[in-house]
Amino acid sequence: MRVAIVGATGAVGKELIKVLEARDFPVDELRLFASPRSAGKTVNFQGRPHTVEVTPEGPIPTDVVLASAGGSVSKKLAPLWSSEGAVVIDNSSAWRYDPEVPLVIPEINPDAARAHKGIIANPNCTTAILAVALWPLHKAFRATNVVVSTYQATSGAGAEGMQELLDETRNYLEGRPVGHKVFQHPIAFNVIPHIDAFQDNGYTREEMKVVWETRKIFDEPEMKISCTAVRIPTLRAHSEAATVLFERPVTPEAARAVLEEAPGVEVVDEPAENRYPMPLSATGKWDVEVGRIRQNLAFDNALDFFVSGDQLLKGAALNAVQIAELLL
Amino acid sequence: MRVAIVGATGAVGKELIKVLEARDFPVDELRLFASPRSAGKTVNFQGRPHTVEVTPEGPIPTDVVLASAGGSVSKKLAPLWSSEGAVVIDNSSAWRYDPEVPLVIPEINPDAARAHKGIIANPNCTTAILAVALWPLHKAFRATNVVVSTYQATSGAGAEGMQELLDETRNYLEGRPVGHKVFQHPIAFNVIPHIDAFQDNGYTREEMKVVWETRKIFDEPEMKISCTAVRIPTLRAHSEAATVLFERPVTPEAARAVLEEAPGVEVVDEPAENRYPMPLSATGKWDVEVGRIRQNLAFDNALDFFVSGDQLLKGAALNAVQIAELLL
Repeated sequence: MRVAIVGATGAVGKELIKVLEARDFPVDELRLFASPRSAGKTVNFQGRPHTVEVTPEGPIPTDVVLASAGGSVSKKLAPLWSSEGAVVIDNSSAWRYDPEVPLVIPEINPDAARAHKGIIANPNCTTAILAVALWPLHKAFRATNVVVSTYQATSGAGAEGMQELLDETRNYLEGRPVGHKVFQHPIAFNVIPHIDAFQDNGYTREEMKVVWETRKIFDEPEMKISCTAVRIPTLRAHSEAATVLFERPVTPEAARAVLEEAPGVEVVDEPAENRYPMPLSATGKWDVEVGRIRQNLAFDNALDFFVSGDQLLKGAALNAVQIAELLL
Repeated sequence: MRVAIVGATGAVGKELIKVLEARDFPVDELRLFASPRSAGKTVNFQGRPHTVEVTPEGPIPTDVVLASAGGSVSKKLAPLWSSEGAVVIDNSSAWRYDPEVPLVIPEINPDAARAHKGIIANPNCTTAILAVALWPLHKAFRATNVVVSTYQATSGAGAEGMQELLDETRNYLEGRPVGHKVFQHPIAFNVIPHIDAFQDNGYTREEMKVVWETRKIFDEPEMKISCTAVRIPTLRAHSEAATVLFERPVTPEAARAVLEEAPGVEVVDEPAENRYPMPLSATGKWDVEVGRIRQNLAFDNALDFFVSGDQLLKGAALNAVQIAELLL
């Protein structure tokens, strides 16, 4: 299969190249695109150098375009890239809410991908990491109300976000002014309950993405979900604390048994051995770690659990490549 | 009034001295106690040096003992310290669940303090920071179900916890092994959903403290509360994301109006100006910051809000001194 990566030099683009290699995706030809600033750079794939080209404003002669170039670029160009038959798997939020565009997590709604009209949307990282754990529980016990609080890494703002955390932390430790540029406030040794733009209802767009996208992926347009999205000073891998009320009787043991069998999930839930999901252990993993599974104490027939997943993998590059695998 | 501080050289002890000074607490005599390791050190109070003495294993001849020396020391010695008339205000968890010992947040249950029998317990930091914001809402709208996820600073583990974060962070940035000693795992650029010991029900003791203590302080023994307590790589000030269901009709506007009038609370809730609670702004403040007040989307008649409060102040030293002020 011929593959193109748009945004090949960004944090997600680099992971896309690694994931294609690691999963032995059958790449017959790989083309790499980025902004003019990065064009001309050389990137290795399967041991051979590939030159980065300027992202075209027209059709891309390939089979699959893995795009991670930001919302405004994708909004404008994805229909052009796909206009001569390529399928665009888009990592931005530009197409996710278009009823004509499938929004896909392969473990959950693979059939939706096959109904594409040239563009398939890859979900928001926070949504994807929660959804792989929530879906098997929803199927087994029917989730009625979901409350989630997130612990999101700076990688969610790309390579610049991660660099900003490192730079600010060095400044802090060396007694210099910490400064900030990518985030609204300094993030080193701080917490910012603000990711993406505020909406009229007081929620951020990041929080609403979890609501909108989970409903679309699950095909549950009325599902009751609420989210607080918080940026914390970690580099990579998001964590989330979830409370879920269920319609059918549930126990932590029954939930654990369901999750043990679920694809894309690793149950890490041995408190006595200090084993639970953490960014440190989830970074670099394809599976999302799920643990701290317990009966919620504020509601009847409700569970709490904690997830950690690699924002750049299941939250982005891995899920995109898994969608491409559905098209093989 | 004669005052003694036990644990005077620890993170909370240092704040106790500063808070006594900053609030012009009428100190006629100050005695400072610590472990033999710290005895002999000199600490300034109101410009005059005070020598740290070894914590006695008998009565302390003073009016108020502000104790922050750990649970096992307080369990054993607080009854002795108070045996000749001193009132011990204890910052550890040793006495909080004793039905004979009042557990006090002065903004909430000041009358309870006056019924003491020699010992008054100071609540857990996470509880105190949530409770000052939750109480006025509970009084106005009756909270029925509370779910809280915490973002807790390393200061919760004392000065050693903060130092460990700084040391680990330096190690990480300089490419050395990160290591860890105070926490169960490295905390630099990580998240640890584990604070204090695991209980049989799958919750940590830190999580259960929020349940047990809020019920006792509010005098609501059946209140439905559930907590996920998470350590994050910040130095000072805890944050918490709360979801609260109410019995009486509530709106974000009505809640904001109630909180604007509440003692111990500062409403920081102007998303359009990027103003919301953060550790960076809450550190050093006596009031707890409350913001991101909005209608929860998963439940009817429920609110979400976010709080940040200084763990060492309202979460410890400030609340203890406020209790002492009740005794004046």
